[in-house]
Amino acid sequence: MASLRENSHRARWEKLSSVARTWYRWSSTSPQTPVPEPVIFSGIQPTGVPHLGNYLGALLPWVKLQQDASPGTKLFFSIVDLHALTVPQNASQLKKWRAEAFATLLAVGLDPNRSTIFYQSAVPAHAELMWILSTVASMGYLSRMTQWKSKLQLPEDTTLEHSEARAQLRLGLFSYPVLQAADILVHRATHVPVGEDQRQHLEFSRYTANSFNHLFGDLFPIPEALISPAKRVMSLKEPTSKMSKSHADERSRVLLTDSPASIHKKVKVALTDSEPMITYDPIHRPGVSNLIEILSHFEDIPCDIIASEYQNASLRSLKEHVAGRIVHHLHDIRERYQQIMADQIQLEVIAQQGAEAAQANTNRTMNRVRDALGL
Amino acid sequence: MASLRENSHRARWEKLSSVARTWYRWSSTSPQTPVPEPVIFSGIQPTGVPHLGNYLGALLPWVKLQQDASPGTKLFFSIVDLHALTVPQNASQLKKWRAEAFATLLAVGLDPNRSTIFYQSAVPAHAELMWILSTVASMGYLSRMTQWKSKLQLPEDTTLEHSEARAQLRLGLFSYPVLQAADILVHRATHVPVGEDQRQHLEFSRYTANSFNHLFGDLFPIPEALISPAKRVMSLKEPTSKMSKSHADERSRVLLTDSPASIHKKVKVALTDSEPMITYDPIHRPGVSNLIEILSHFEDIPCDIIASEYQNASLRSLKEHVAGRIVHHLHDIRERYQQIMADQIQLEVIAQQGAEAAQANTNRTMNRVRDALGL
Repeated sequence: MASLRENSHRARWEKLSSVARTWYRWSSTSPQTPVPEPVIFSGIQPTGVPHLGNYLGALLPWVKLQQDASPGTKLFFSIVDLHALTVPQNASQLKKWRAEAFATLLAVGLDPNRSTIFYQSAVPAHAELMWILSTVASMGYLSRMTQWKSKLQLPEDTTLEHSEARAQLRLGLFSYPVLQAADILVHRATHVPVGEDQRQHLEFSRYTANSFNHLFGDLFPIPEALISPAKRVMSLKEPTSKMSKSHADERSRVLLTDSPASIHKKVKVALTDSEPMITYDPIHRPGVSNLIEILSHFEDIPCDIIASEYQNASLRSLKEHVAGRIVHHLHDIRERYQQIMADQIQLEVIAQQGAEAAQANTNRTMNRVRDALGL
Repeated sequence: MASLRENSHRARWEKLSSVARTWYRWSSTSPQTPVPEPVIFSGIQPTGVPHLGNYLGALLPWVKLQQDASPGTKLFFSIVDLHALTVPQNASQLKKWRAEAFATLLAVGLDPNRSTIFYQSAVPAHAELMWILSTVASMGYLSRMTQWKSKLQLPEDTTLEHSEARAQLRLGLFSYPVLQAADILVHRATHVPVGEDQRQHLEFSRYTANSFNHLFGDLFPIPEALISPAKRVMSLKEPTSKMSKSHADERSRVLLTDSPASIHKKVKVALTDSEPMITYDPIHRPGVSNLIEILSHFEDIPCDIIASEYQNASLRSLKEHVAGRIVHHLHDIRERYQQIMADQIQLEVIAQQGAEAAQANTNRTMNRVRDALGL
């Protein structure tokens, strides 16, 4: 089963890579419209230096898309700092986190001469289109979405009349999916690499694009999801949950800038189990299986094969091997990150250039949108 | 009673005029903060050429504020075309209506060298600050506001779970008050001339400014309402309702660009009553009283005095006098309007200059806001 799932993951990944080389239709609803070049958009929240889960699940797939993209493909990657405001933030920490996130995108290998990398808040058209889309977005649809409920830790069947919702919910958190739709549509994105858990939001963006096109003519391509085949990396301390920035124990995650010693230590004390032998069994042995999956990412070998290779090895040697692979892979990233962070002025110059390129692209969309609406 | 009410109206009007000459505190919550120059902001929806009610209730007070303002007072008047999108619009009509509204502001006497006149959609910071304020704006508060209910013709106690609300309500209409708050706060307005019916929205802006200042430091002055003393001009055909752009019978309203013949005709067929003598009695004789009120505006004489002067006159001669006064007063406005509309390129140049000046003012706010939030 696991290997079947893996094959289907791989098939999707190959589709994802080929996307970047293929010409796609502007919109499935208008066969007459000229076929545009693919446009890839994705965003990352500024929550500081990303961890291994962010890296394998999102950043590495972005770098691969950049590598595989046809020359005509446009790529946009944004630090979505306006989204960050939907939950309380400390201003100086947010400022630091934004810069760290930007530096990380460069350090992992996104090339500002190939991809447009920018802070969302530096490009006004994201908020401008958000307002315009909101005049079409249905309150009923938004109230059924789950993100605002999960962020407020309310049950999934919570309605807007629930007393906790009335007391706690802010408009920004509620209307977050509309800003996300604007992020995508303002760049006329045709493909959006997202995590499985973001599918609902991309569905909302597709619905919004369709509603808008229906009312005002074909303004937006209907964006397609590119679901990364990367399995979720689980917490080293609680391997039934995703590796997360918010877990209290910082040994539960490996940051991209962790020192080799720190990585070895964290992997060494990762929670596993006391069963004999190494086997790959995510349900019954989540801790061991998580380590195998991490290795599988780096070595590009299916988990089952790794498990059988390590079958008779000690857990300690598996852990050492995993830690070594992580250290090796992150070595250059960490070094580049430190170089980039040491020159904040240069980082600001790159961010400014990214914002200008992104703005030029949004201007083309907004001119068409304004014209279609009579503004 | 009527004359008492009139006196209190006049007193408020005098306060309103003096505001423009006075130095006001930046914020009532921070006595230490330096006292800023007054900043006046107001907006008008682009619904085509305004009628007499719009003129006497909003535009003429704006012109008087401009006349009376101290040299240090800044004045901003916006065609709020982003708000117009909260209800369905025809694109080419909206385009025409925007230009007509802009031309009217110039024609009635707003001076682009003294006041900043601009299209809301041409200044991105309105939408940018809207998003930022929305991260603080309470869904509970917004759901209790009445405008979205009245626009959807739903009862005032409608909740968001009401089936009609779920089916019809769009996010833009629901979050309209937050964009209105952004309009005001992004210009750091200290005073907002509004109609009595807009008080609830200004209250929301004040609440939002207070919440935001509480979280992020004193960023915004708390804006004060300037309620115009102008009585509402009633429909010529249904004098118990306000003169309105949406009334089916266009003889119910006088547009600022109506020809003298058309004005005479509309006033002549205005609905009155068949009682003998002319008296001022808005409750029992709304039609006659409306004509007296219009005259009172133009002649700056209390209604009771006008009524006693005309006591024994015929209704016909009162109507002729009213029509004559309107024609006389609108003559220059109409002529200027036609000149302005005849040179669309010049109109665009003025709009562009207004947008640039407005943008320069919003930049100062947004730099402070971004800094306070860590963006």
